[in-house]
Amino acid sequence: MATRACIKPIFILLCKIPIMDALVIALGGNALLQNGEKPSFPVQLKNARRTAKSIARRLAKEKAFVITHGNGPQVGYELLRNIYAGRKLPQMPLRIINAETQAIIGSILQSAIASELEKIGSKKRICTVLTHVVVDRKDKAFENPTKPIGPLYSKKELQKQLKIEKFDYVMTGLLYRRVVASPRPLKIIEIGQIKELVEDGFGVICCGGGGIPIFDDWNGANAVIDKDRTTQHLANSIKASRMAILTNVDCVYKDYLGRRVPIKKIEASSIGESLGDFDEGTMRPKLEACTDFIMNGGKRAYIGSLFSLDSALAGTSGTLIM
Amino acid sequence: MATRACIKPIFILLCKIPIMDALVIALGGNALLQNGEKPSFPVQLKNARRTAKSIARRLAKEKAFVITHGNGPQVGYELLRNIYAGRKLPQMPLRIINAETQAIIGSILQSAIASELEKIGSKKRICTVLTHVVVDRKDKAFENPTKPIGPLYSKKELQKQLKIEKFDYVMTGLLYRRVVASPRPLKIIEIGQIKELVEDGFGVICCGGGGIPIFDDWNGANAVIDKDRTTQHLANSIKASRMAILTNVDCVYKDYLGRRVPIKKIEASSIGESLGDFDEGTMRPKLEACTDFIMNGGKRAYIGSLFSLDSALAGTSGTLIM
Repeated sequence: MATRACIKPIFILLCKIPIMDALVIALGGNALLQNGEKPSFPVQLKNARRTAKSIARRLAKEKAFVITHGNGPQVGYELLRNIYAGRKLPQMPLRIINAETQAIIGSILQSAIASELEKIGSKKRICTVLTHVVVDRKDKAFENPTKPIGPLYSKKELQKQLKIEKFDYVMTGLLYRRVVASPRPLKIIEIGQIKELVEDGFGVICCGGGGIPIFDDWNGANAVIDKDRTTQHLANSIKASRMAILTNVDCVYKDYLGRRVPIKKIEASSIGESLGDFDEGTMRPKLEACTDFIMNGGKRAYIGSLFSLDSALAGTSGTLIM
Repeated sequence: MATRACIKPIFILLCKIPIMDALVIALGGNALLQNGEKPSFPVQLKNARRTAKSIARRLAKEKAFVITHGNGPQVGYELLRNIYAGRKLPQMPLRIINAETQAIIGSILQSAIASELEKIGSKKRICTVLTHVVVDRKDKAFENPTKPIGPLYSKKELQKQLKIEKFDYVMTGLLYRRVVASPRPLKIIEIGQIKELVEDGFGVICCGGGGIPIFDDWNGANAVIDKDRTTQHLANSIKASRMAILTNVDCVYKDYLGRRVPIKKIEASSIGESLGDFDEGTMRPKLEACTDFIMNGGKRAYIGSLFSLDSALAGTSGTLIM
């Protein structure tokens, strides 16, 4: 270690004086599972490989990058697995379910991307860091949980499940669904380590599903943190220059359900007033995250399709937020 | 990042010239679950806190440390959860089950240790890195799988389960149990990142359950890697000076089931010939790992109780291998 320690600072001096231009990418849950697909390992690996193929060439060119990802479908299935086995094995709390999905998706994504990077001759190395994110007990989201997770229940199933664990729920049509709070991320516990790895040239997969929700005393929070919010927090904390939110829509549209006017470019400062025009469940949090990223020092944010990272960064697809 | 990049090398120059004295600790599966305990989250957290209390003061004094851990009980329960939900949800392969246990145990351990470190005023920060370990397709272990995992099956249950997935099994008494190969670890994929973090002063939890078993093409291996073997590989790869294997036995005994002669100190070079005296399933792999660690440049290895790290390192408990 001694020799290494002497050589390292000189190496870092040579490599690190130029401003690092880091790219943070948020992958939608559909990177691994499309709607209605069977949540098996082969299916998720196949999808991950497709995603990897489309982003690896770009990642190979980047000096520094971080990948975050959603976990919506996987959280649902892990909750289901817990419920099905619930009579025989104790059910795990949401913080552990999130941790499990970070490992499942992290390992599958890492395998697919690392293997694709190797194939194209890149020496980039990536790893997956389990991420805990602190939220505030007094966050107003806890007063009015609105984030739906897990399966739909009939009234009978709901009553049965409520005997095992108490939770909030809403009615959707004739069925019921669990809802949890979606508080704002305050602090990413592993931010120092992630920054260190990124500065040392490693690609990092982290903040999966918005991160494991905890309070500042390390107790778990019964919550799901929005992954785009956490991604923005991360991107600003490591002072990344660019952030790209990749999803199953090719760009941001005005009047999405009506005339569908694609937005190619938009000033962050002008988004605030028109946020109400966008769908609360899908596009609005992404636009908010991009706006906050720019307002807090980020240079450029992109919203685009999972399969067009390169052209989004080049400005020929997607939506650019400046 | 630019400013940080300029300050960092100077900081590293000042801090890193002394030889780093890293400690690698392997925690037995019983750190989180004792035999027969209910595998719930509160029980595992309670046990982790007890373990954390006993090791945190020592870790706070260490310049650099890595923690690895077993996952025997947790793999068993995750397999069971998969089996119980098996008719309704696709079962996950062993590589994913291992990844899940790294996240479950990693998050619980990290919470307990980080919170204990904070309590005693330490500024040490730790994180959990998902670890993939490459094994050889031609490893002889694959010809003759011997590592028992998961639940005991009756003949009927076994036949039912074999229809869902093919696996090797052995008969134990009147029941059956799945066995998988336990090949040698060849390469820890994330070794560069782990070394970097450790050199930067972060504590790292990694290599859980011996690591996610993969082949060199990133395909998963139907295997479980011995965690002590992986720990030794890791310890030598990062050139750690010390390795401690903590378990539910207070030291190594000769004639464990008979006269029980405790061994306080032993030369690594003299272990080879007497390895046959130790139990193949429990103590032998630990002694082998310690011997190999010393033979490959490690300075001191310890085998001792989960609750006496301090005294083991001080030489007043446990077994020292030099």
